[in-house]
Amino acid sequence: MNKTRLEAFSDGVFAIVITLLVLNIHVPDGRTFSLQNLRPLAPPIGTFVLSFIMVGVYWVAHHHMLHFIKQVNRRLLWLNLLVLLCVVFIPFPASLLGTGFSNPLVVRLYGLTLIATNAAGLVFWLYAVAHPDLLMSQVTRDFARLVVKVHSAPMFGYALAVALAGWSTTVSLIIYAAVPLFFILPNPLLERRIGTATRIEAEVPE
Amino acid sequence: MNKTRLEAFSDGVFAIVITLLVLNIHVPDGRTFSLQNLRPLAPPIGTFVLSFIMVGVYWVAHHHMLHFIKQVNRRLLWLNLLVLLCVVFIPFPASLLGTGFSNPLVVRLYGLTLIATNAAGLVFWLYAVAHPDLLMSQVTRDFARLVVKVHSAPMFGYALAVALAGWSTTVSLIIYAAVPLFFILPNPLLERRIGTATRIEAEVPE
Amino acid sequence: MNKTRLEAFSDGVFAIVITLLVLNIHVPDGRTFSLQNLRPLAPPIGTFVLSFIMVGVYWVAHHHMLHFIKQVNRRLLWLNLLVLLCVVFIPFPASLLGTGFSNPLVVRLYGLTLIATNAAGLVFWLYAVAHPDLLMSQVTRDFARLVVKVHSAPMFGYALAVALAGWSTTVSLIIYAAVPLFFILPNPLLERRIGTATRIEAEVPE
Amino acid sequence: MNKTRLEAFSDGVFAIVITLLVLNIHVPDGRTFSLQNLRPLAPPIGTFVLSFIMVGVYWVAHHHMLHFIKQVNRRLLWLNLLVLLCVVFIPFPASLLGTGFSNPLVVRLYGLTLIATNAAGLVFWLYAVAHPDLLMSQVTRDFARLVVKVHSAPMFGYALAVALAGWSTTVSLIIYAAVPLFFILPNPLLERRIGTATRIEAEVPE
Repeated sequence: MNKTRLEAFSDGVFAIVITLLVLNIHVPDGRTFSLQNLRPLAPPIGTFVLSFIMVGVYWVAHHHMLHFIKQVNRRLLWLNLLVLLCVVFIPFPASLLGTGFSNPLVVRLYGLTLIATNAAGLVFWLYAVAHPDLLMSQVTRDFARLVVKVHSAPMFGYALAVALAGWSTTVSLIIYAAVPLFFILPNPLLERRIGTATRIEAEVPE
Repeated sequence: MNKTRLEAFSDGVFAIVITLLVLNIHVPDGRTFSLQNLRPLAPPIGTFVLSFIMVGVYWVAHHHMLHFIKQVNRRLLWLNLLVLLCVVFIPFPASLLGTGFSNPLVVRLYGLTLIATNAAGLVFWLYAVAHPDLLMSQVTRDFARLVVKVHSAPMFGYALAVALAGWSTTVSLIIYAAVPLFFILPNPLLERRIGTATRIEAEVPE
Repeated sequence: MNKTRLEAFSDGVFAIVITLLVLNIHVPDGRTFSLQNLRPLAPPIGTFVLSFIMVGVYWVAHHHMLHFIKQVNRRLLWLNLLVLLCVVFIPFPASLLGTGFSNPLVVRLYGLTLIATNAAGLVFWLYAVAHPDLLMSQVTRDFARLVVKVHSAPMFGYALAVALAGWSTTVSLIIYAAVPLFFILPNPLLERRIGTATRIEAEVPE
Repeated sequence: MNKTRLEAFSDGVFAIVITLLVLNIHVPDGRTFSLQNLRPLAPPIGTFVLSFIMVGVYWVAHHHMLHFIKQVNRRLLWLNLLVLLCVVFIPFPASLLGTGFSNPLVVRLYGLTLIATNAAGLVFWLYAVAHPDLLMSQVTRDFARLVVKVHSAPMFGYALAVALAGWSTTVSLIIYAAVPLFFILPNPLLERRIGTATRIEAEVPE
């Protein structure tokens, strides 16, 4: 299996998932639609934006990882499909969450799906790191460990949100939203660490 | 992040959004379907055609901008995802508009989404222009300013339509339809100005 | 606009349309599903297969035409989007047809969409032929005329089917199915004519 | 028709089909959702996972075959579309199966679709093998036969499951799940045989 092919297929899946999310916003009747109808739209639209960002973060992370993969063998191919299986599943808990923010079980299901997706990404990376012939030679042990940390850290955030959902679903949702922002917004802590990665990246022939 | 990858992913998203629009046309029962059933199909089919053109214009504009981008950094990547977030949202107000043309609020929501999409594209371009290392060297100050104008002008058109919706939704819809036609139909005003851009483009190595 | 980009975007749209067609098959309840439920599935499944073949034929024809295009200008780009607009619309009349084969109006709407799609393809080709700088130099006048004929011929078939729908929808549907088969099945008449095209194609650098 | 184009289009179709599968999971109301609602979700989610794996296996198999194709002619192109027709149809029997695991007819329909997909892939390969000018020169008779076996073997498994569905749908479903696992999990029998293929693959210029 060609690496380029794997990337193109994965890109297609990410693009479709990120676009399908909008179908979860149930369309009210436009003839009787009034400002009062905007309020019940808050959960589905909020979930849409949150999930769009999540899938976006996963897409960026996926490419970042694949950038350092030199070759794909049969098992790595299936581990990649495991990651995609989790990503493709996201619209379901997202759709459920869009029907209401107050049910702890629904909020937990959303978080558990995120944890599963991060875990699948982690397994993918750990397998690659354990098989140096699949990796670009520039990947140092330190860098490999940094990627492990970057993929593991959100899982703790999501696990905390899952645990707190019974107490306050609002707090859980804030945690879900805060975790990806940590990766998106300018962030001195991350920037310094990613600095190393970028330096490596610059040396990798495209 | 590779520029080619970003383009491929964005292309995928645009292709899916433009295709999903047809799902907003609610399918009547074919067994009892008569010429009288064609009339209520006018709003959803009209909205489909209008939104198809809109997404088409955004796709063309997106490529035009990316053509002059040399390199994509982490922030530009996320600004691109912000543009895509707006584009992906379009099927929702489109679907709402398809249920009836007479509700000012619905007509306004459609226009506000268009304004948001143009604004996101503008922020993307302004960020790129402020970071000359991300731009092709052929991009002159004049050309950068022309792109800003081309992206800003439609926003005024849409804002006017939003303002007029309370008075006549028909006028608003005509404005929505007229704005993209300005970019599609042969247009001496635009042609002369784009002439400069094309001259630049010709010098850009593919 | 790069030709490769146009092809990739168009391919994406074709791929999504051809896949969405299956969503038109309404899923019955699997718990009470019996052999008697298979009969009402005939129209939606038949329409799915027919429309899949149609979109497949359009996809092949689209590539065949683009193969002889050297360069894409602004207008050709929009004529291509006009073709895609027709293709993207196909799931709607297909969905309508899937609810029953006996309504002449529904059968006619399907045929009219096909005629519109062929007409759009024809306009695309005629524009390209009228601008020799957009065409590969190998395209002779004879070959250009052959493509015009190949795109026009089905329109007469579909028009006949639309005219006959009031008399017998079954005959119309047989015509719809027969036209693409003419292009797919081994066909000495077409093969001889396409022979010329293939000879040209072989000389075109990929 | 360019081989790369065919692959890109097929990849797009596979990516969309594998993503659409999640839409078959009917979303319950999130406000009243409780642990008791998880049980009825087992069939749709189980079918989603099973079908995701199936489409994944077909995607991998498709690429493996195309890897050894040098050139695509008109008929091979349509045989490829026949394969895609079967793959695109999968969401329908999958959706039906998702409404309940206990109906033998529904379980059989799922298996028949899988058999049809494998059969279409087999016809594709047999046609290619019968036209050596379409094949990479490295493809030996032994290797061609191995591919035939690998594509035929699952059909017997699925046929057995179809036959046993009247007696126990659970056994049928276990067989459906076991067949792809044979290809995914580490498997000394397959590994040794594929060894030959991989050696060939290594010599094929990308």
